Amino acid sequence: MDLNKIEHLGIAVKNIEESLKYYEGVLGLKCYAIEEVAEQKVKTAFLKVGDTKLELLEATSNDSPIAKFIEKRGEGVQHIAFAVNGIENALNEVIEKGIKLIDEKPRKGAEGLDIAFLHPKSTGGVLTEFCEKNN
Amino acid sequence: MDLNKIEHLGIAVKNIEESLKYYEGVLGLKCYAIEEVAEQKVKTAFLKVGDTKLELLEATSNDSPIAKFIEKRGEGVQHIAFAVNGIENALNEVIEKGIKLIDEKPRKGAEGLDIAFLHPKSTGGVLTEFCEKNN
Repeated sequence: MDLNKIEHLGIAVKNIEESLKYYEGVLGLKCYAIEEVAEQKVKTAFLKVGDTKLELLEATSNDSPIAKFIEKRGEGVQHIAFAVNGIENALNEVIEKGIKLIDEKPRKGAEGLDIAFLHPKSTGGVLTEFCEKNN
Repeated sequence: MDLNKIEHLGIAVKNIEESLKYYEGVLGLKCYAIEEVAEQKVKTAFLKVGDTKLELLEATSNDSPIAKFIEKRGEGVQHIAFAVNGIENALNEVIEKGIKLIDEKPRKGAEGLDIAFLHPKSTGGVLTEFCEKNN
């Protein structure tokens, strides 16, 4: 397993514009991109902090995973994404170790990354994403 | 405001030893320190990943904030800690911007850092810590 770093933290928010008042206006971070990921029914806003990113996630539909998360737990950290080298091998490795996956094969995520989610039931309640820049 | 990076992510766990089976055994990270913070009624385990850390937090008492968190929301990410330059100035700046604090003055946290928590009601549900290496 070759985990490089935390690529980003996914934070479920009700409204990106409102949240940016805090992340930009108070913390002084800078939003450098807003992107819609139609497949996931979310709008995302990215802010860089050090070597990692915050990804604010707003639901674009009531049946979006983010809408469900907020309904159940309120706004807050929804997932951790680790940058890995060799995402397919990493997924095979965790499967062999008994981890349940949400995505058995990588798919396209925000910023064009190859991504896959591990199931929070296997990861101590922390929804966990592996991601890799594709070549 | 001078935020350098995410210093660590605090993750509430029921049992550090069990959780290390995942973080070390599956993800291949390395726990380099286990420390008790008596004042907070927690035992902490630190793992490095890239330029930041994961801090696993286990309650040492039923009235620990971590025990309450797990009772309410289950295991998962409990807080984000940002490394700041000039923690006192940073706290004054966020107070001026209307943010509610849990700690108005820095206090000692794990690894000897000066730390202070912002109230999640002011930060979109994300319990947020500022921390600084003291000189």
